[in-house]
Amino acid sequence: MFIRNLWYVIAWSHEVGADALFTRTVLSEPILLMRKQDGSLSALQDRCCHRLLPLSRGAREGDAVRCGYHGLKFDCGGQCVEVPGMERVPSYLKIKSYPVVEKNRWIFVWMGDPERADEALLPDNFANDDPQWCNKPGYMHYEVPYLLICDNLLDFSHLSYVHANTLGGSPEIARSRQKIDRLLIPDGRQVGLKVSRRVSDVPPSPYWKSFRVGLRDEMYERWFDYDFVLPGTLLMDSGGRPIAAPDDEARTVRLLSCQTLTPETETSTHYFFQQSCQSADFERAPETVDHMYATLVRAFHEDQDTITAQYRALQATPGMKMHAVPPFDGALGHFRGLVEQWVAAESSASFSQGQ
Amino acid sequence: MFIRNLWYVIAWSHEVGADALFTRTVLSEPILLMRKQDGSLSALQDRCCHRLLPLSRGAREGDAVRCGYHGLKFDCGGQCVEVPGMERVPSYLKIKSYPVVEKNRWIFVWMGDPERADEALLPDNFANDDPQWCNKPGYMHYEVPYLLICDNLLDFSHLSYVHANTLGGSPEIARSRQKIDRLLIPDGRQVGLKVSRRVSDVPPSPYWKSFRVGLRDEMYERWFDYDFVLPGTLLMDSGGRPIAAPDDEARTVRLLSCQTLTPETETSTHYFFQQSCQSADFERAPETVDHMYATLVRAFHEDQDTITAQYRALQATPGMKMHAVPPFDGALGHFRGLVEQWVAAESSASFSQGQ
Amino acid sequence: MFIRNLWYVIAWSHEVGADALFTRTVLSEPILLMRKQDGSLSALQDRCCHRLLPLSRGAREGDAVRCGYHGLKFDCGGQCVEVPGMERVPSYLKIKSYPVVEKNRWIFVWMGDPERADEALLPDNFANDDPQWCNKPGYMHYEVPYLLICDNLLDFSHLSYVHANTLGGSPEIARSRQKIDRLLIPDGRQVGLKVSRRVSDVPPSPYWKSFRVGLRDEMYERWFDYDFVLPGTLLMDSGGRPIAAPDDEARTVRLLSCQTLTPETETSTHYFFQQSCQSADFERAPETVDHMYATLVRAFHEDQDTITAQYRALQATPGMKMHAVPPFDGALGHFRGLVEQWVAAESSASFSQGQ
Repeated sequence: MFIRNLWYVIAWSHEVGADALFTRTVLSEPILLMRKQDGSLSALQDRCCHRLLPLSRGAREGDAVRCGYHGLKFDCGGQCVEVPGMERVPSYLKIKSYPVVEKNRWIFVWMGDPERADEALLPDNFANDDPQWCNKPGYMHYEVPYLLICDNLLDFSHLSYVHANTLGGSPEIARSRQKIDRLLIPDGRQVGLKVSRRVSDVPPSPYWKSFRVGLRDEMYERWFDYDFVLPGTLLMDSGGRPIAAPDDEARTVRLLSCQTLTPETETSTHYFFQQSCQSADFERAPETVDHMYATLVRAFHEDQDTITAQYRALQATPGMKMHAVPPFDGALGHFRGLVEQWVAAESSASFSQGQ
Repeated sequence: MFIRNLWYVIAWSHEVGADALFTRTVLSEPILLMRKQDGSLSALQDRCCHRLLPLSRGAREGDAVRCGYHGLKFDCGGQCVEVPGMERVPSYLKIKSYPVVEKNRWIFVWMGDPERADEALLPDNFANDDPQWCNKPGYMHYEVPYLLICDNLLDFSHLSYVHANTLGGSPEIARSRQKIDRLLIPDGRQVGLKVSRRVSDVPPSPYWKSFRVGLRDEMYERWFDYDFVLPGTLLMDSGGRPIAAPDDEARTVRLLSCQTLTPETETSTHYFFQQSCQSADFERAPETVDHMYATLVRAFHEDQDTITAQYRALQATPGMKMHAVPPFDGALGHFRGLVEQWVAAESSASFSQGQ
Repeated sequence: MFIRNLWYVIAWSHEVGADALFTRTVLSEPILLMRKQDGSLSALQDRCCHRLLPLSRGAREGDAVRCGYHGLKFDCGGQCVEVPGMERVPSYLKIKSYPVVEKNRWIFVWMGDPERADEALLPDNFANDDPQWCNKPGYMHYEVPYLLICDNLLDFSHLSYVHANTLGGSPEIARSRQKIDRLLIPDGRQVGLKVSRRVSDVPPSPYWKSFRVGLRDEMYERWFDYDFVLPGTLLMDSGGRPIAAPDDEARTVRLLSCQTLTPETETSTHYFFQQSCQSADFERAPETVDHMYATLVRAFHEDQDTITAQYRALQATPGMKMHAVPPFDGALGHFRGLVEQWVAAESSASFSQGQ
C-alpha cells in the first residue's frame, strides 16, 4: 500500500529533453513525460487506451504523441484527437493525466486525486539548484521495497559498519544517539521527522578525505541534521568541525544533500540523490564535485548491497520476524507508523465517499 | 482455453529429418515427431510413461525410440514394447499418440479427440509448395499469447505505423477500411473470416523495392485479400497495380503467403510463415527470394517488438482495459468471438458426454 | 516435507577455514558455520535477529561474529553480547543455533529438536578419511528436489543408458536385478536400505579404463553393494573381478564411495561425493585419483542433465503421473515410503505434544 496523495519525484529535469518520450514507472503506473514546446511538462499514463501499447514507443507530433501501433494521436492532456480514417473521435478515447511540477531540478508527479494536488507538500529541495552550492546529480535503481531504504536513511548508526571506509570511519557513530522530532508544515500536518545526531571526538570521515585535499588528521565533532519527509525525501545539512578549532571555517566540512525515494513497484525503488559542497570549495578545486560524487556512489552501492541482501534474506525466511533494537529503530518505527497512518486515512476517506 | 479439435502446425517438413527425435510443445503438450523408415510421420507425447523423461533425449532404434533413462522402448504408436530384463511388458506402459498429417510442407497434429480428426479442417496452404510460386520458409518464436498475434494479422491498419519503412509506406493504409465476410467450409461450418482491403493512390511499398529492382516510383492501388482460418492461419493474395497502367503485369507486384500461429503455451506461440513470389520473378532474378525473406523477417521483428511490448504492458497494468476502436477492431473482435464459440461448444460437448 | 530429526551434511571439513563465515542453506534454513579458535564448529541461523541481514556479511571477532549492518555482536552460541551504545543487551536478542558434528571430513548439522540430536544416526562414512583409501572430494549443486536424485541412486539400471560411456558399458546392468534389504541400526530402527547387485559376464566399465592403465579387455563380474541411509547417503563397495581369474587382485577393481544428498530447499539439493581407490593403487600411480575424479564428475553431469530434464518435464506436465516399472522401482518406492513414515511420525509427535 502506498500513500497516493503526495508528490513523487519521477525524474531529474535534465533527463527529459525537448523531444523526449520519457517513460518511468511510479507506484506501478507507467508514466510518459513530455516537455511541451513552451518548456512546461505533461505527464500521461504510458498506455494507448486502444490496445495498451506504451505511447513512449510512438512519435512526438508537436505537443502531441501518436501511438506506434494504429496511429491514434493524443494531446498532452490525454485526449485522443485523431483516429486515422475516422471523422469524429469518440470522447471515451482518452488516457489518464497526472499533475506535474518541476522544482529545483526535480520533476514531481501527483499520484492521487488531481483535485487535491497540494504544492504545500512539495519538499524544500533548494540545494539541488542554489548558486551557493555545487553538486552532480545521481540516480540508482533498487530491487527492494522503498521502506527498507527509508529504514536505512532513518538510522545513521549503520555508517559505522556499512560505510566503515567511506561515510563512516568510526564505531562512535553507532554509539551516539539521534534526536527525533516531528516535522510539521504550517497548517499543522505532520509530514515527516526531524533527525539530529552529534558525534564527538572522531577522526575525519574517509569520505571527506576523498575530496578535500590536505584535510588534517585531527579530531572532529560531526553533525547530521535532516528532515525526512513523506514519501521518502531526505534534506540534510551535515559536516564536521575540528574540536581544536570549531570556528575555523577552512578546517570545517559542510555539505547539503537532497535524496529521495520513489517506489517503482511494491518491490523496486527509484533513488535520486545529490550531495553538494559550497561553491567556494568548487572554485578552489573544481574536481571536488567529481570526487564527492565518486565516493558517494561507492558508499551508496554499499547500502544497496546491504539492503538487497537484507531483502533477499527476508524473502528466503518468510516466517522470521525482525526484532526492534530501541536505540536504532526509533526514527524508522515512527516513520513507518506515519506512513500507515496516511494510508489508513486515505483508505477511510475513500470508504466514506463510497468508492 | 484452446480449441482442441483442430489441426495445428507443429513443424515445417524439412525440420524433421530421417533419424530425428524432433520435439516441440503445442497447447502445453510436448510432442515428439519421428519420421518412420517409410517416410511417414509419428507424433507421440514426448514423455516416457515411467519417470517422465522426455523421449527426445533417448535414441532411435528403427521406427522405435528407446528412453535414455532406463531403456524402455516404445513403438511409433506409443506402446512400450521392451523393458530391459522383463519378459512381458505390462500393457499400461504406453504413451499418447496424435493424428499427424503432412500437407504442402507443413506438419499438422490434431490436438483433440483422435476419433474426430477431420481433414476437411486442413487449410488450403498450396502456396507453400506450388511450382508457380517460390519462397523461403521462416519460423519465429513469440513470448506472447497467440490471440494477440491473431489481432495483429486481422487488422492491417498497423502497416502504416509499425511497418512505415517496410510493409507499409503510407498512412493511407490505416485510413482505408477492410471488408469482412464469414469463411465457411462446404458443410456450412464457419472456420474463419475473409478479409479484403483496397488502398488507392499510394506509393509502392518499401518492401517491394527491396526485392524488385527497377520498380518505378509511381502511384499504386494495393490489395490485401486473405482468409484467416482457425486456429490462426493466414492465406493471402496481396500486391499492387500501377494506377497509370493497371494491366501492365511487368509493373504489377503479386504475392501469395501462408502464415500460421500455433500456441506453444498459454503465453507463447510458434509462428510459421512464408511469402512467395511468382516463379517468373525468381527466374528473372533468383536473389528475389532471399531479398523478400530478409525484409519480411525485418518486418516481422517490428511486429514482434510491438506485440511483445503490448503484452508486457498488459501484464504490468492488469486492471486496465482495452477500448475498441470500431474501424480497426471489427475483424479481430469477430474472430475472438468465433474462438470462444468453438471453445464453448467443445466444453458443452464434453459436459454432455459426462467427461 | 522433510524429516527434521536427522543429521544433514552441510559441508566438507576443508570448506570451513579458521576465519571463515561459511554460509549454506539446509532445508530452507540459511546456516552460518564458524570454526572456533579451538577448532570446533558452531552453526547458527545466518540472520541477525534485528533486521535479518545475513551474519555471514559481517565480521569475525574471535569466536564471535559482528553484524555488518548495525554492529550487533553474537557469541558462537547465538546470544547477542553487544549492541553498540547500549549498556545491557536484552536477552531476546539471540539467534537459533544447531547441533553440529564433524566426522570423517563431513560436517553434519542436526535440523530437528536439539534435545533429540542422536549420534547413533550418523552414517559410517569412514571411507572419506581412511589411510587405506584415497580420494578427491567433490560437490555439485542440483536444481531439483532431492528425492529425484535418491531415486536415481537407488536404481543402477540407469547405468546402461545414462552412463553408457562412463560408469556403465553394457545393457546387462539394466537387465540384472538388485536385492534389497532393510537397513537397521542396533536399536532396531530402520534407517535405510541395503542394496546389492551382481552383473555377470560384462566388459570392464569405461570408467575403470579411464584410471587403470593396462586394464585388459576381458569379461568381468561386477558388484555394487551399498547402504542407502536417511536422509540420502550412499555408502558403497563396488568393483569387478575377471571371470577368468576371480582371485587375481591385480586384475580386480575395487572402490569405496560416500555420497550424500542434502536438500537446500524444496526444489534444490547439495550433493557431496567421493569415490576412493585403494592406497596401493595411488602409490603405484598417483594420477589415479585425479583421473577417477574427472570421469566421475563427467558421469555425475550425465545424471544431472537427465534428472534436471526429468524435473523440468514433471513441472511442464503437472497432470501427468509416473508409472511404476516393478524391476526398477522397488528400492526407490520402499525408500520414499520410509521417508513418508518418518515425516508422519514427526508430525504426529508434534501433534500429540500440542505443538
